[in-house]
Amino acid sequence: MPRINEAFLNLRASYLFAEVKRRTQAYRDAHPGVRLIDLGIGDVTLPLPGVVVQALEDAAREQARAETLRGYGPYVGYEFLRTEIAAHDFGARGVQIGPDEIFVSDGGKSDAANIQELFAQDAVVALMDPAYPVYADANVMAGRSGPADASGRYPGFVYLPCTAENDFQPALPDRPVDLIYLCYPNNPTGAVMTRAALRRWVDYARAHEAVIVYDAAYEAYIRDAELPHSIYEIEGAREVAIESRSFSKSAGFTGLRMAYTVVPREAQGRTGAGGAVSLNQLWLRRQSTKSNGPPYVIQRAAAAVYTPEGQKQVRALIDHYMENARILREGLERAGLTVYGGRNAPYIWIRTPAGVSSWDFFDRLLAEAQVVGVPGSGFGPSGEGYFRVTAFGSRTDSAEAVERIATRLRD
Amino acid sequence: MPRINEAFLNLRASYLFAEVKRRTQAYRDAHPGVRLIDLGIGDVTLPLPGVVVQALEDAAREQARAETLRGYGPYVGYEFLRTEIAAHDFGARGVQIGPDEIFVSDGGKSDAANIQELFAQDAVVALMDPAYPVYADANVMAGRSGPADASGRYPGFVYLPCTAENDFQPALPDRPVDLIYLCYPNNPTGAVMTRAALRRWVDYARAHEAVIVYDAAYEAYIRDAELPHSIYEIEGAREVAIESRSFSKSAGFTGLRMAYTVVPREAQGRTGAGGAVSLNQLWLRRQSTKSNGPPYVIQRAAAAVYTPEGQKQVRALIDHYMENARILREGLERAGLTVYGGRNAPYIWIRTPAGVSSWDFFDRLLAEAQVVGVPGSGFGPSGEGYFRVTAFGSRTDSAEAVERIATRLRD
Repeated sequence: MPRINEAFLNLRASYLFAEVKRRTQAYRDAHPGVRLIDLGIGDVTLPLPGVVVQALEDAAREQARAETLRGYGPYVGYEFLRTEIAAHDFGARGVQIGPDEIFVSDGGKSDAANIQELFAQDAVVALMDPAYPVYADANVMAGRSGPADASGRYPGFVYLPCTAENDFQPALPDRPVDLIYLCYPNNPTGAVMTRAALRRWVDYARAHEAVIVYDAAYEAYIRDAELPHSIYEIEGAREVAIESRSFSKSAGFTGLRMAYTVVPREAQGRTGAGGAVSLNQLWLRRQSTKSNGPPYVIQRAAAAVYTPEGQKQVRALIDHYMENARILREGLERAGLTVYGGRNAPYIWIRTPAGVSSWDFFDRLLAEAQVVGVPGSGFGPSGEGYFRVTAFGSRTDSAEAVERIATRLRD
Repeated sequence: MPRINEAFLNLRASYLFAEVKRRTQAYRDAHPGVRLIDLGIGDVTLPLPGVVVQALEDAAREQARAETLRGYGPYVGYEFLRTEIAAHDFGARGVQIGPDEIFVSDGGKSDAANIQELFAQDAVVALMDPAYPVYADANVMAGRSGPADASGRYPGFVYLPCTAENDFQPALPDRPVDLIYLCYPNNPTGAVMTRAALRRWVDYARAHEAVIVYDAAYEAYIRDAELPHSIYEIEGAREVAIESRSFSKSAGFTGLRMAYTVVPREAQGRTGAGGAVSLNQLWLRRQSTKSNGPPYVIQRAAAAVYTPEGQKQVRALIDHYMENARILREGLERAGLTVYGGRNAPYIWIRTPAGVSSWDFFDRLLAEAQVVGVPGSGFGPSGEGYFRVTAFGSRTDSAEAVERIATRLRD
């Protein structure tokens, strides 16, 4: 038997969402008549926009004729899609991003997991705490963490706690780091970062030779006109920031799988000998070698999002989910819970009652209110004592969840 | 600037197919009126089977209604697809593979690139030479190769030369190796491996504690009834073999992106301390953490391949390409070239004329016959002096390529 990559064994138990699924299924099996309301995994519930479905069908039919068949596509996505992204997601906000700086992929999860491959094995990783688990887990598997302690904290990572005490705004690292994962609007806390705060991070990265991996998967949920949508709205960010976006939550593509990552031409890393290396070229090489890009039909569907009708339909989806967020936020507050987020993000971050752990709150909510959410501790040690619910459920489920929690949850 | 993964810098020039594309485009730009015949990259040219297009359209329409919307799917693929794979691709040949041993992915390229993540950084990799470049490149990027020498040979790899002299059958490694990449029917040489020969490899892996990564992407092209389609037809293979298959060339999915990898429950690796670890569980963890599985609509399209009508349509595709293979093989022989493959595989492997290198032959074929192929040296040092053409072109292109080569290629 060959030796395995033992860094895998440093991963804690099973992947968070797999564990949530497991406990939920166990409850379902034990209570077959009971209807659960799932505000857990953050999956969308509204059907795909009509223009997207139409584009998918049209693209499928193209494959039935040799003249319009599309085989292998560009490794980094079709130009027709990358130019739309550049124009609409960036150009429309005054940010210049070239199509050759945009790398289309099959998901924000893949990009979040894969980007670390560009960096040295001993790179020091700074993580918001709590955070989307993939940032940590991918770096654990790459051997940058060491084994976790009892609280789930990895000695190799620099944690940036984000709690109610600091208004969910991480402090700058207190020691040298190489990679900084930031996510705004934030999953799971629903927090946002102001332009001034983001500028501090960009300035920090420039001064301290770090690279920021900026996850803007929830950018479309920003309502406050003052908030930056892209890190490239901050001067100097092109030198130090990689930004990822996803079609999953904006256009409902969780089942279609489509995202992209921007690596500006100016972004650089260095060799041990001190030579500068283009991160754009490294990522191009990584994606070219390990992927053939997402399916043509899905890229056509994504391009339809940028038509005027597509933009209208996507806006309607987001408005719908943000109304769910309002119902959840206000309802849970009325029920006596302390909640955060849900104003510029589709996540509501609940403070668990005093003395109740995140997983205990998960089990209680499931057993008493038949509502499924995600324990905050699954997102990192500082998520302990919090709990995430999403606005991606149906309208009636969102309202009923609030009602159930208000009436069924025992003190 | 953070330090990069310097193993990337060990990669030779650009990815083979990217370089082929680049030279081809340069020729097109310089000769705008000339029609090139592309028998290079191995992309399919026949339209997708009707049942596949229909399934795609139907699945697209399901996404237009909340009741039938599919969001996040199982990380490893839908059960409906995995049970079809188990029944048709294995059960029908008397091989028992469970759905929990099948991991659906977005491509054979991804699987070939990613499987090495399960193994220790100092794992010794054995590669057929020539071979599909992704096996090598992924291990280069993982730091297992060291820098290449002038011939493109990496000191960290064990090469298993496959040339006309040994009938394209690699000898067993002459020193300990951990991972052995085998591909049959072979890309690029078109060679096959008999049951007896494959048994020697399985026995070797069992005796020497190696794992075989068996790429069976071209399994559907096997015509000879005596040849094994799966490595699991060999006794004991479940303990030491991982097998990958693809829908790209069988059902024309190069643009739809769909493949799968089988990791049997018995397959194991070990820790440095000697403990056994299930490779099936490691791969499950890897895929769960870094992927959300391929799009639902594409999985539906793949499932349609297993309907009786789908099987008939796919068989017709393969028959068509294999007739191209015959035309190419016989025509190139008539033109005085020495050729291999093309009998149980969609690739024809041409011996370049004496004294003509692979890239020289590429340039000559492009300049004199306006035919594009792939230089054998791009597949590894022992591919020097060979040249690959594929049977995936159209019928008329295949015939015309033969005619052009016979009449235009200067001696």
